[in-house]
Parts: sequence; C-alpha cells; structure tokens
Amino acid sequence: MEAEETPTQVTVDDLQDVWPMLPPEDRMTGFRLLEREEAEGFFTRLDGDDQLQLLLALPVAQRRTWMRLLEPDDAADVVQAADEDHRPELLSLLDERSREEVRALLAYAEDDAGGLMSTRFVRVRPEMTVDEAIRYLRKQAREKVETLSYTYVLDAHQRLLGVVSFRQLFSARGDTHVSEVMVTDLVTVPEEMDQEEVGRIFAQHDLVAVPVLDADGVMKGIVTIDDIVDVVEEEATEDIQKLGGMQALDAPYLQVGLWDMVKKRAGWLTVLMIGEMFTATAMGYYEHQISRAVVLALFVPLIISCGGNSGSQASTLVIRALALNELRLKDWRRVLGRELKAGLALGLILGVIGVLRIVLWPDAAEVYSEHYVGVGLAVGASVAGVVLWGATMGAMLPLLLHRAGFDPASASAPFVATLVDVTGLMIYFSVATAVLKGTLL
Amino acid sequence: MEAEETPTQVTVDDLQDVWPMLPPEDRMTGFRLLEREEAEGFFTRLDGDDQLQLLLALPVAQRRTWMRLLEPDDAADVVQAADEDHRPELLSLLDERSREEVRALLAYAEDDAGGLMSTRFVRVRPEMTVDEAIRYLRKQAREKVETLSYTYVLDAHQRLLGVVSFRQLFSARGDTHVSEVMVTDLVTVPEEMDQEEVGRIFAQHDLVAVPVLDADGVMKGIVTIDDIVDVVEEEATEDIQKLGGMQALDAPYLQVGLWDMVKKRAGWLTVLMIGEMFTATAMGYYEHQISRAVVLALFVPLIISCGGNSGSQASTLVIRALALNELRLKDWRRVLGRELKAGLALGLILGVIGVLRIVLWPDAAEVYSEHYVGVGLAVGASVAGVVLWGATMGAMLPLLLHRAGFDPASASAPFVATLVDVTGLMIYFSVATAVLKGTLL
Repeated sequence: MEAEETPTQVTVDDLQDVWPMLPPEDRMTGFRLLEREEAEGFFTRLDGDDQLQLLLALPVAQRRTWMRLLEPDDAADVVQAADEDHRPELLSLLDERSREEVRALLAYAEDDAGGLMSTRFVRVRPEMTVDEAIRYLRKQAREKVETLSYTYVLDAHQRLLGVVSFRQLFSARGDTHVSEVMVTDLVTVPEEMDQEEVGRIFAQHDLVAVPVLDADGVMKGIVTIDDIVDVVEEEATEDIQKLGGMQALDAPYLQVGLWDMVKKRAGWLTVLMIGEMFTATAMGYYEHQISRAVVLALFVPLIISCGGNSGSQASTLVIRALALNELRLKDWRRVLGRELKAGLALGLILGVIGVLRIVLWPDAAEVYSEHYVGVGLAVGASVAGVVLWGATMGAMLPLLLHRAGFDPASASAPFVATLVDVTGLMIYFSVATAVLKGTLL
Repeated sequence: MEAEETPTQVTVDDLQDVWPMLPPEDRMTGFRLLEREEAEGFFTRLDGDDQLQLLLALPVAQRRTWMRLLEPDDAADVVQAADEDHRPELLSLLDERSREEVRALLAYAEDDAGGLMSTRFVRVRPEMTVDEAIRYLRKQAREKVETLSYTYVLDAHQRLLGVVSFRQLFSARGDTHVSEVMVTDLVTVPEEMDQEEVGRIFAQHDLVAVPVLDADGVMKGIVTIDDIVDVVEEEATEDIQKLGGMQALDAPYLQVGLWDMVKKRAGWLTVLMIGEMFTATAMGYYEHQISRAVVLALFVPLIISCGGNSGSQASTLVIRALALNELRLKDWRRVLGRELKAGLALGLILGVIGVLRIVLWPDAAEVYSEHYVGVGLAVGASVAGVVLWGATMGAMLPLLLHRAGFDPASASAPFVATLVDVTGLMIYFSVATAVLKGTLL
C-alpha cells in the first residue's frame, strides 16, 4: 500500500520544479514545508526578486537570519529589487562589513559589470612563494569566496598585476614566487561595462571568471560565468519579446501584473496601428481601381502578408546577427547583396505559386472574371516584387536604426511592417494597373 | 611619427573581434599572421565548425599538430562537424587514447548530455585520506583535465558515490577519509538527456559542473558551465529564428550558403502563403459588400494587421515562457484568463483610436461617405474584437501545439497568422454588416 500523502513530504526538487509557476501565496506555503537546511540551500539559489518576495512574507523577526545567508552580490540584488521604502530596513539586517560591501555594489547600475560582480575573490601578493600562497589561500577558502579557480595577484594599492589559475599554482614548485608563475596577459572589464558586452567577452575568450577594474587599474571584484548564464538568457528573452512587438517584461509571464502587461503591450500595438493607418490612405488612392475591379481587393491581405513575412524573416536574422556580433554596420553591402539574391529567389518561388493558385483554380473564370489569367499574372508579379522588397527592407532597416543609435530589436518590427505594407499595396496596384490596363481596368 | 602599419601586427584580440564576420579565405590569412603560441590559444577557443574550416585549409602535413591540441570533447565536435568522407582522416590524426575517447563521444547525439560532456574529470576513491587525495589530484592536474573545482568519488566499478568540492577537500583535515567529507546528495544527468534540459538543470541548481551517468550509475563524464553558455545562446537563436518564421540556420548569417538560406526560408514562407490564400477565399464571400461599399476595403489591411500584431505578441510571450519552463500545459486556464482580460483592455484602447481616426479625419464625410460615423464605429468595434481574438488565439495555439507534440516555436507563427487573418476578416465584415445595414449596405 502506498504511504498516505501528507503535505510535509515536499522535497527541494519538487518545489524547484513548480516554483516559477506558483502564485506568491503558494510559494510561502511550499517554502515552509522544507526542512531548515534544505530551505536555506533553496533560498540562496533563488534570484533576487524571489528572495525579496519571500523575505517580505516572513515575520520581521525571522528576516535577519535569512538575509545574512546571502553573499554581498546577492544581497545587493535583493536590496535593488526592493522599493525605496524597504531598502534601509533590509540593509540594517546585514552585519556591518557586508552592509558596506552591499552599499558599494548598489552604487553600480544593476546591469553593469560592477552591478554583477562579487567582491569576494581570492588574492595574493606577487612576492609570496607558491607554498605561502597556498597556505594563505587555504585560510581564505574558509571564508565565503566566490571561486578558487583563479587567484588574483594585487600590488599594495590593490592594482591587478596578474592572475594564477589554481591549476598553475597547484602544479608549480613550492619555492617559486607567485610573480614567476602568474599570467600578465589578462582579459579584464571596466566596472561600467554593460552586462551584455561582458557576456560577449566571456563567450569570445571562453572564460570562467573575469576581473573588474576601475579606471586606475584597481581590482574591484570578479564576474563569474554562472552570473553570465543568467544574463545571456535574460538578454535573449528581452530580444525575443521586443521582436514580438512589445516592451520587454521584467518578470515571468504569470508573475507580471495584468495592468503592467497591458502597458508594455499597448505601446507598440498603438504605434503599429498608427503606422498601419497609412495603408487606409494608400488604399484610398486606389479606390477607383477597386470599385472597377473588386476582384483586386480579394488579394490585398495575401499580398501584404507575403511582404510582411519576408520582411520579418530578414529583420529577425539581421537583428540576431547584430546581437551576437556576427555582423557590423560596415557589412551592409554584403547583407544587401545577399538579401537581393535571396529575396529574388524567394519572390520567384512564391510568385509562381501565386499565379498557379489563381489560374488553376476551378471556375477561375467565374470567380476571378474572364481576365483571370491577367489577374493571376498581376498577383504573381506583385508577390514576387513584394517578397523581394520585404527581404531587402527587412534586412536594411535594422542596420539603419542601429546606425542612428536605436535598439534594432525594439524598433524594427513597426517600421518594417508599416513600410512593407504601404509600399506593398503600391507595388500591387501599380503592377495590376500595368497588366490589366485595357482589359479589367 | 607613427610606426608604419605592416600586416604582421595582428594580435589575437584584433582577430577575435572581426572573426565572426570574416569570409573563410580572410580567416586563414588572419590566422597565419598570429604568432605560434597565440595561434594555438586562439585555435583551441574556436567552435568546432571554425576549427574544422581552419584544419581543412591547412596543408595535410600540419593538421596533426593542430588536431592534437584539442581536448577529446572538442576533437569530437570537429569530427562531428566534418562530412562522412573527412572523418576517418581526422580521427587518424589523434593519438590512440584520444581516438578511443573521441569514438566513444561520437556515439552520442551532438545535442545530448553525452555529446556535450568531457571525459577528463578528476576522480578519487572513497577510502583515500584527504592528504592522499590531494597528492593524487596534483598528479592528475598535470594532465589535461576539464576542471579541478569538483573531485568525483568513484567505486571500483566507476559508479559515482559522491563529490567533494575543491574547497571542502582543501579545508578538511588531512587525515580524514574522502568518504567522510564527500557530499552524497547529488544532481546528476543521464547521458541521453537533451542539452536544453541540461541547461535548465544548471540554471535551477546554480551548478558549475554536473556529472553524466549511464543507466547503471557509472560516471561517463562531466558537463561544465562554459559548454552551457553556448547551448543557452544557441537555443535562444534557434527559437528567435523560428519565431521569425523560418527554419533555424545552423551557422552565422554571413556564413550560411545562399542556397541553403533560401531553402530554410522558403519552407515557412510557402506554408504561410498557402495559409493566407484562405483570406482571398474569405474576401470572396464579402465581394458583394465590398462592391456596394468600397470604403470597407480600405480598412482591411489595418484590421488584419491589428489582429496579427496582437496575436504575435501573445504567442511570443507564451512560447518563451514555455521554453523557460515558466509555464506548463495545465496552466492553460490561467493563461486564457489573463489573455482575455489583457486582450479586452488592448482591444478597447485600439478600438477607440480606430474610431477617432475615422470620425475626426478632415473631410471624413467626403472620404468615407456620409455614413462615416457608422464606418468609424464598425472599424473601431472590429479592431477591438480582432485584437481580443488575436491575443486569445495567439496564447492558446502554442499551448495546443505543444500538447499535440509539435515545437510551439516553429509552428505557431503560421497557424496564428492564418487563423487570425481569416477570422479577422469575418469579424470585420460581420460587424460592418450589422452596423451599416440600412445605411451603407
């Protein structure tokens, strides 16, 4: 017989699995069911927002113990996530040394290298011997340090001279000096560097930790690769949401307040709609043609959607390539060349499909008038032109916007959509007028 | 006076910066300009595709040295990136022990935990003392091992018993046994686990390395966090490209062959176009209304684009939330509830803008007929309905597709686009008929 299910049988893994989906009230319930030791491990692994949520849900008397479990960089994230009102209280929960460190970290913007770094790295002096360094390291290892993989060699002014990987130190002879085994050809980042840029440097140099320096070369902390994984995922989510035509949400889908979500989505929807209003104006110019040949109106949605799809493919590709540094502004000629060729090929494929769809339709003559072959050719040629135009504009606009200093991920969608839709209509009705002049028009 | 620029002044950093954008022929030129030692470091940090490209561009006699610079997991990536024809030659370049290891790794799918792992981890036996373990580790550290951060404790059958972090080992008393300091409550992954899932486990448990076990608990290797950063970025790029309406490219934008790119883009464009053809059929049903009131046709692009934008926002949000495990199928009711409310709010905002755009237009009576207030109300109400409908469908379809076993990222765009466009037209013309009956229609 199976054991009766009691609510106290919650394990860390169970809770971890469902956590992102739990409403706040259930989170506290689940958290209370964990055993103390497990709860501590679980708590320290949460992100700053979630830690804050739990802390504030706990009775005031219990907050101190939990807050003190956190390393300074994590405690700083919690304080940063809180309202101005709660910050002094949260800071007062820390011991004095940590409070100082947290205050220093809070001075950085959250998404700078300085805001991401940990101040607890292991350090030695260049004149130490390897044996002395290892002994000194053993002492530091008993305190909370972020990683032992790299030991940083600092001068008396805390300026960074070099780095020794643990492996190098470990396999060096005991009586050599640290200065002889250290590497001085270093990758470092300045404290105000944006986290996205820091992520790129990690990827380029295959790093596990990078030292953060101020303008005088003084070492302020290290950013470790586990922080970077979160950054990479966060930035990708932001880009994806911007490409989807909205402002990036700053929390998981089910956690964002309804009103907040409406605000983030309404902005671009409104801009897009105002842009699309030009299609009504453009259509107005062709009202005469439409009234003479209503059959032309039937293909308007098809044609503008082909242009839109082709454009959104091309801009997605270019925007992602820019984000990953695979592409630079000065490559625009190569991009243009590629998109002209790819757009032509894609346009021809879809154009032929368009012609066939109309010409081979059963009762084509009845549905699309006796001039159905002409209609088919007009639609096919327009599809080809619109697809080529969409690919070219979709690729060039993000580059232009990037050039002009805008974020291509958030601004391209509306520009491409509006431009391609309005010009698509113009292409369609011009081609139709040329092809059908004297027959249908 | 500045030193004359000679082409030999290329540094690793210069090359690293421009590398992703260089055409293949320039890559080799740049690479040859590096000093030997720098070139070696540079080479080992490239990804498998790039390493293969360089290797094959080198004279046959030089390939062996370069291939032997690679650790087995990286060498396996190179072999995997090569055509079947080149694989035996590449394998023959390795020494026998490495060749065995690479062969074993090649048996795994590239994006499984087994394909990602390194087989060179540090291992000790449980009955060793801490001092013995450290001595034994120092010996292993001189060979190539992936990381010293964790030491894995294996029994005589290579089954994983526990793990000791370097810090634990380092700060333990020298005469205690490894079995006393090791942690036995472990996070492990099976060798056939998908890399995306492995990435999620890293994020959930804040790991820097995870052991890979076979079905019998035998330890096969470790996956380290630096491999995971690449995976996270790769998966995000794939999702973004699929959301942009194409098959994921498997190389940077400028590196993909033109024909290959056309193939990857033509598929979905064709599917989308065939789907959109239903809009022509739908429009056909309302040909009578259009011919009586051509003014209705003017707003067709505006209305379907509002529905499409609202739908693509909602599906982007839901697809990303599914990818990040923030959402599960059983949450569908909560998602539906949220989207109904958000869609209603967004629909009302855009609907009001739509009414105002028409009613307040200068010469509205002239441009949109004397019944312009009716036209405005019909368009506004349709926009509201289409936006609500788009948000709801956009959110529900990815969940349905996921339920049915499809990848929501690649299949949602066309379904949502077609469905929302066709039904958007039906909403528009039904509302217009109801509002304008007896006046314009």
